[in-house]
Amino acid sequence: MKATIERATLLKGLSHVQSVVERRNTIPILSNVLIEATANGTLKLMATDLDLQIVESIQAQVDTPGATTLSAHTLFDIARKLPEGSQVSLQAADGKMLIQAGRARFNLSTLPRDDFPVIAEGDLPTTFELPAATLIQIIDKTRFAISTEETRYYLNGIFFHVSDDPQPVLKAAATDGHRLARVTVPRPDGAEKMPDIIVPRKCIGELRKLLDEVDGSVDISLSASKIRFGLGTAILTSKLIDGTFPDYSRVIPTANDKLLKIDPRSFEDGVDRVATIATEKTRAVKMALDKDKITLSVTSPENGTAAEEVPGDFAGEGFDIGFNARYLLDILQQVDSDLVELHLADAAAPTLIRENDKSPALYVLMPMRV
Amino acid sequence: MKATIERATLLKGLSHVQSVVERRNTIPILSNVLIEATANGTLKLMATDLDLQIVESIQAQVDTPGATTLSAHTLFDIARKLPEGSQVSLQAADGKMLIQAGRARFNLSTLPRDDFPVIAEGDLPTTFELPAATLIQIIDKTRFAISTEETRYYLNGIFFHVSDDPQPVLKAAATDGHRLARVTVPRPDGAEKMPDIIVPRKCIGELRKLLDEVDGSVDISLSASKIRFGLGTAILTSKLIDGTFPDYSRVIPTANDKLLKIDPRSFEDGVDRVATIATEKTRAVKMALDKDKITLSVTSPENGTAAEEVPGDFAGEGFDIGFNARYLLDILQQVDSDLVELHLADAAAPTLIRENDKSPALYVLMPMRV
Repeated sequence: MKATIERATLLKGLSHVQSVVERRNTIPILSNVLIEATANGTLKLMATDLDLQIVESIQAQVDTPGATTLSAHTLFDIARKLPEGSQVSLQAADGKMLIQAGRARFNLSTLPRDDFPVIAEGDLPTTFELPAATLIQIIDKTRFAISTEETRYYLNGIFFHVSDDPQPVLKAAATDGHRLARVTVPRPDGAEKMPDIIVPRKCIGELRKLLDEVDGSVDISLSASKIRFGLGTAILTSKLIDGTFPDYSRVIPTANDKLLKIDPRSFEDGVDRVATIATEKTRAVKMALDKDKITLSVTSPENGTAAEEVPGDFAGEGFDIGFNARYLLDILQQVDSDLVELHLADAAAPTLIRENDKSPALYVLMPMRV
Repeated sequence: MKATIERATLLKGLSHVQSVVERRNTIPILSNVLIEATANGTLKLMATDLDLQIVESIQAQVDTPGATTLSAHTLFDIARKLPEGSQVSLQAADGKMLIQAGRARFNLSTLPRDDFPVIAEGDLPTTFELPAATLIQIIDKTRFAISTEETRYYLNGIFFHVSDDPQPVLKAAATDGHRLARVTVPRPDGAEKMPDIIVPRKCIGELRKLLDEVDGSVDISLSASKIRFGLGTAILTSKLIDGTFPDYSRVIPTANDKLLKIDPRSFEDGVDRVATIATEKTRAVKMALDKDKITLSVTSPENGTAAEEVPGDFAGEGFDIGFNARYLLDILQQVDSDLVELHLADAAAPTLIRENDKSPALYVLMPMRV
């Protein structure tokens, strides 16, 4: 193969694909990026970790079509350091790739393109579009709740499913057993018969990065085992998690009758401040609920005590409840409105948190004993 | 004690002292900052690691003079999170300090001020002033060469000494055995009888941070075992390294007769680029010297080869020499002028690098076999 490409274009393309490549690989070719120059003036950059695959298509001047693979991180580092505005010539032959730009030339080892593993997509019968902004909202408001416990692999992703109850909707949920985050959006056309799927954490992370550069909509195609996202010049394909997501709807409380309405910013700042003295062992922040205020406090045997009063509107008899400060902050950071609602039952029952009954996002948080 | 202080003032003072405090301490009180409120409206913040001590004096409204100690990092984190513009009340009594600002209050454990170790400065007979800009220049151009090998403790700092040869000068040098950096500045008044001293790496690091906020001059007082830097509101006192710095002047080559003049920016960029494919084991960049250019190259058994030609003016018969790419870059990054001189002898001899024969900074770099 022989092709010439602008340094900035190559760098942008590589920046998308290289982060799919793991830093350490027992299979050498998984460290590589597949570069394919086609006769129609396109350079395809492809990277994979066997579960997630990305293909980025960029424009290039192709003299001789062909393909090879070479170290993704090395090529990315080289592209980063090449002079701005330079033209990069790529020339592969005899197990080597010659890269030239300005006065610099690199002759790098390659591995044959035929050894590069490609994820077989199979049939992807469900196809629909989602606005990039909607997908960003879904990811940002749920991903923090994804479990990191590898033994509970079926919680290591975001669960997507459709429902007709009462309107046709697409729901996305994530939980680690201590908190649950769910976003509900109108069901896109074409998603009617979508199977329930769990999209793995790494795919979510790469997808989220790519979404920052997408205007308009994302093309989504999926089966029960694979999903593909079409994002402009990039195509992201991932295996889905082969497992059953628990029936999370049962943990969403429906009869919590004690309502606290509070400014999420003062609440967040207060929790953050009192949590300063919390330690690894004592992450719980106590909320003492009163008619027109709540008192946040943390007690640490090593450091001492911290307390702060935050004005709030609480309906019901006062009581005390404790939450993991980090989990509470994760949720409050996702609340954009002026007011957040906490629907409480008692000190031991899951608490429902949302902006209001019309907001697409909903959170459930388990209390801690304080 | 009881005092009130503006949050921004407290935060700035704590930001200076907290970085002297080590994250892990076997002696609990070394995690603490000593806070002393004096009747004249000053709050003194003091931190130490037994070798290095900082005292920062800030203005406060003092109601009751007194002193106590409490966790430096916790107090710093609290000050960071307190509302902007708030007034912070500090009140110490009965082994606790009550901190109040806005609606937040913290009651933190303290340790008695009498247990706080203070470095006995003793007599500091040599005193002089140095412009902050000069001290910055000395540190920036030498500190990268400080050795990190703990067994060669006498190289773990910057060596300062005065000399009369031929003009009265103050010289600062650092070396790790592979490279040497030296800066020469006019000898300040008062430094005539200065003993030779080695200022430890950590003191240099803290001093450098504080210098960013200093206009004008720094007051320096020292003996053979201690040094004190007066920097506006902060006083930094450090023990000196008790050891003998090697006679480095012997390694500065004086008869290197092959001179390369080259643009430091193209040289630096070229070395940085070819070094992309260098690995842990092969950090050497080869320079093939020719009349009007040098060819930089790196060969890596794993990755392949890289080469770049850089125009340069070389007087002498061409030959090849290798350098550790990282060490060469460290030096080139300190060269601000349009031209740098490399005075070479042969492939095995130390090379002298400097801007020109009038520049205050001078570097010596040992070659590597390539």
